[in-house]
Amino acid sequence: MYRSHNCGELRISNAGQEVTLAGWVQRARKLGGMTFVDLRDRYGITQLVVEATADAALVETASSLGREYVIQVKGKVVERQSKNPKMETGDIEIIVSAINILNKSVTPPFTIEENSDGGEDLRAKYRYLDLRRPPLQKALALRHRLAQEIRTYLDQQGFMEIETPYLIKSTPEGARDFVVPSRMNPGQFYALPQSPQTFKQLLMVAGYDRYFQIVRCFRDEDLRADRQPEFTRIDCEMSFVEQEDVLNTFEGMMRQMFKNAVGVDIPNPIPRMSWYDAMDFYGSDKPDIRFDMKIHEITSVAQGHGFSVFDSCEYVGAIAATGCAEYTRKEIDALTEWVKRPQVGAKGLVYIKCNADGTYKSSVDKFYTPEEVKAMADAAEAKAGDLVLILCGGRRKAQTMLGVLRIEMGNRLGYRDPKVFAPLWIVDFPLFEWDDETNRFYAMHHPFTAPKPEHLDWYYSDKKEDLERVCANAYDFVLNGTELGGGSIRIHEAAMQERMFEILGITKEDADYKFGFIINAFKFGAPPHGGLAFGFDRVCALFGGQETIRDYIAFPKNNQGRDVMIDSPSAIDQVQMDELMIVSTAQNTEE
Amino acid sequence: MYRSHNCGELRISNAGQEVTLAGWVQRARKLGGMTFVDLRDRYGITQLVVEATADAALVETASSLGREYVIQVKGKVVERQSKNPKMETGDIEIIVSAINILNKSVTPPFTIEENSDGGEDLRAKYRYLDLRRPPLQKALALRHRLAQEIRTYLDQQGFMEIETPYLIKSTPEGARDFVVPSRMNPGQFYALPQSPQTFKQLLMVAGYDRYFQIVRCFRDEDLRADRQPEFTRIDCEMSFVEQEDVLNTFEGMMRQMFKNAVGVDIPNPIPRMSWYDAMDFYGSDKPDIRFDMKIHEITSVAQGHGFSVFDSCEYVGAIAATGCAEYTRKEIDALTEWVKRPQVGAKGLVYIKCNADGTYKSSVDKFYTPEEVKAMADAAEAKAGDLVLILCGGRRKAQTMLGVLRIEMGNRLGYRDPKVFAPLWIVDFPLFEWDDETNRFYAMHHPFTAPKPEHLDWYYSDKKEDLERVCANAYDFVLNGTELGGGSIRIHEAAMQERMFEILGITKEDADYKFGFIINAFKFGAPPHGGLAFGFDRVCALFGGQETIRDYIAFPKNNQGRDVMIDSPSAIDQVQMDELMIVSTAQNTEE
Repeated sequence: MYRSHNCGELRISNAGQEVTLAGWVQRARKLGGMTFVDLRDRYGITQLVVEATADAALVETASSLGREYVIQVKGKVVERQSKNPKMETGDIEIIVSAINILNKSVTPPFTIEENSDGGEDLRAKYRYLDLRRPPLQKALALRHRLAQEIRTYLDQQGFMEIETPYLIKSTPEGARDFVVPSRMNPGQFYALPQSPQTFKQLLMVAGYDRYFQIVRCFRDEDLRADRQPEFTRIDCEMSFVEQEDVLNTFEGMMRQMFKNAVGVDIPNPIPRMSWYDAMDFYGSDKPDIRFDMKIHEITSVAQGHGFSVFDSCEYVGAIAATGCAEYTRKEIDALTEWVKRPQVGAKGLVYIKCNADGTYKSSVDKFYTPEEVKAMADAAEAKAGDLVLILCGGRRKAQTMLGVLRIEMGNRLGYRDPKVFAPLWIVDFPLFEWDDETNRFYAMHHPFTAPKPEHLDWYYSDKKEDLERVCANAYDFVLNGTELGGGSIRIHEAAMQERMFEILGITKEDADYKFGFIINAFKFGAPPHGGLAFGFDRVCALFGGQETIRDYIAFPKNNQGRDVMIDSPSAIDQVQMDELMIVSTAQNTEE
Repeated sequence: MYRSHNCGELRISNAGQEVTLAGWVQRARKLGGMTFVDLRDRYGITQLVVEATADAALVETASSLGREYVIQVKGKVVERQSKNPKMETGDIEIIVSAINILNKSVTPPFTIEENSDGGEDLRAKYRYLDLRRPPLQKALALRHRLAQEIRTYLDQQGFMEIETPYLIKSTPEGARDFVVPSRMNPGQFYALPQSPQTFKQLLMVAGYDRYFQIVRCFRDEDLRADRQPEFTRIDCEMSFVEQEDVLNTFEGMMRQMFKNAVGVDIPNPIPRMSWYDAMDFYGSDKPDIRFDMKIHEITSVAQGHGFSVFDSCEYVGAIAATGCAEYTRKEIDALTEWVKRPQVGAKGLVYIKCNADGTYKSSVDKFYTPEEVKAMADAAEAKAGDLVLILCGGRRKAQTMLGVLRIEMGNRLGYRDPKVFAPLWIVDFPLFEWDDETNRFYAMHHPFTAPKPEHLDWYYSDKKEDLERVCANAYDFVLNGTELGGGSIRIHEAAMQERMFEILGITKEDADYKFGFIINAFKFGAPPHGGLAFGFDRVCALFGGQETIRDYIAFPKNNQGRDVMIDSPSAIDQVQMDELMIVSTAQNTEE
């Protein structure tokens, strides 16, 4: 070993010891003939001192040290005169007796500190230097810790981690599959999995009872902000379970992860909310319940007073923004413009200021008496000092817009502290969505999701209104307004599956073509089963109190799916193309 | 939950309890009006009894049960009259009060028992049924347990598991890379990693200090028996370490894996053997040391007696096959033919029978006096009753042939019990191999492997004989004659790396083209580092006492790289080809 201790572990109790350390020079500075060096490794920073009275060669070596040099030093631990309480090793320093330069460094293109002076592109190109910065080291350490906690918990619960293949088959529905030409089978392709869904269900058919995998998945789609072409899932499936069993199992996992990796106790039990309540009160299927500010329907009090905008709408809804009654005209105008942007899509914004003195001021005062305005504010559960914000339209559309506005107001009011964790299960999703354009039902999740057992009569009914109210045995795990995972109990009975295809208008031929392989496997004794999957990259980011996942992935790709560090993807040799028997038409296209 | 207990846990202490079980019907048989059902799940088998006196509908249902039906039963645990000591639940049975058929099964194409009657191809096609058999369930359970042990141990040792990308860049040396066309970057390709070598070294540059990953790797090569196009590695790297630190760390890992997953105590310390000794005494760089039967050089006693075959050879070597002196002429002839096959490549085989009465009988008696024959037998450390087998030729070639013969004799003598574990480190490999044809040195491992520190004078010497004796800071982990893993201390100094390229005849331009990216990263302060990787599939197989890895992979591919279960690889839609801007020329080629 090149060291007796790492750079994060020496304390006052080590004073007097002779130690050997190794690491990177964070910085070196001269002060009155002495040289102070901050030596850094993954574990921390330790201050080194080369005294003015030291051997001339040693002083000379110390003077030559540049940023990011890799050195090994021997020396004695001493108590510091001026302690640094911000550093874990801040009580001590090392009086250096020898320095061995293990490797020099050219000057790095940006500073390697808590906050770097490097731009995003430069840091991406030199990712291996950016990864030296403490925030990224902490991010990857958290990721490792979370993965360990997940595996420990699931192992204790009798789950087996089983590796499923990465070279699989492109499916008829797999338009966004990455494909891999096979040299040994010319003209044929593997596909990279978008998820191990088929394999995990096969493992249930095969009797593995409780399966999990922390597994890479791939999707060749146009990348939205913060999406990656390869991403990691916590993928799980259980046999002989009902929805309640799945929720309890993974609630336990989340509790253990929060407790052991972040030191946070989350609510026990984790609250559950029906999809309908989530839409009605939060305008979102992934509500942020760190703050209240619920959406209130005020249709009945808002309508019938001659304000045609409201009177002509299916739905009028409101939120009460706490303490915002003092908003200026200018601020409210800006907010109105904000909700009218296409990203929100409102036609306008009605407000009611609930003044501290008990009076009200609204943008629709000419249509409503003060009592009627008060009634609307009361319906929104506004208190003195609040600003009521009202939108209207089709029910779900208006609720969704109010949901977006609610999040914006939550941000402005500082209600969305990333260090506060408010997990939530969303349950009771509708099984089907009716589409007016194509005049048919679609599966809200996928066509293998089972209906709730208590809704089976509706499921087998021929009436549209019955089918519309069938709930799915499905669930999402939501944290702080982000969906971290979800899953369902799967259909395992042939008759129920046939009914599903019938409702969705999928013919037997279609079903056989698209899902024949798995339907066939199910004929050999499929057990009742269900599962779920979490997006691990996002789990890590949220647990770390961040919104973006990129810092939680060691070597991420950019928005064009490129790894700018290794410059990939790239052209390949003609020889290789020939061996794979493929020709690229991209050149021709560009001409 | 569909069950109160699983099928493997009920014991005599549960007698009298009302329980609910769920699982698969292993078999159902009538016996004097009673129906006996073996109910199976991952955890075991429990015997169910439907009594002749039970409710008629229940008896009827029990009679209707077919193999692999999925059922849920309620009943009472009772002590068995005739206990079955071979089953863990053999002391009890369940008197069934209710059966709920959860799913029927069509008749499976082969028996799902310890040993199936299905052929290999059929079982591969219905892998999800084959996976129900206990040996495969045990194999995957062992794999899970080993992965858990590895992660727990390495976590305790301060290693972080860091996920490296799967969509990387094809390298100039990557002729066997699988490539992935990028839709968003037409004409460009990602490559799937053959190993995360570059990334793990970058993580050391980035200061992660101790990295590991259980990671999938890919190689598009012609598949030899028991190779897979995708395979799993335990991939590890450490900073600020010397060879001794790496060996000790992973020796500890192996010890814990053997202890906790297999219940075996392996030798402490694990023996180490130089590559030279392995070749001299075992004719292999991965010796099976479960048995002795070492190779002995007998050149000096064999030569100079007029037997021109020996006299004209560089080397004469022998092994003493324990207790084989009774081999008949026919048996020895067969063995002679065996060593003359091209797979071994010997020109002939000389033997000496060491008879029980102290006399000797050899195939070269006319060239040697009895004393000279005895001298050869003594040199081979043969005892009375042994059969000395002698081969000659160039030193390493003859040793290798003797090594193959030694393994064959070990097999015949039953010395290679797969439940006996003899681990071994091979160290002190030559750093370079001289090739007479091209008249130059090649790297025995790869051009980033560091020389042993004590051989640096030879490393910088210009003399061929000095360079030939430079040993590498490299090591292999060998178990029972199979190499399970290996690694090296890497070169981290620019000057040492340049010298390596110089010795290997790699120009600066070549080096920049092939390795430029990593060489550049190393300029920013690369720490001393080294690591190793284990082939996890083979680790699992050997720990399970098997030679073949396929049972230890849930969904393996066949020798043509095909997954016959999902029928992959396969042709893809023209639409998809068009989007990816690639054209297959395979059709044209076939015409």
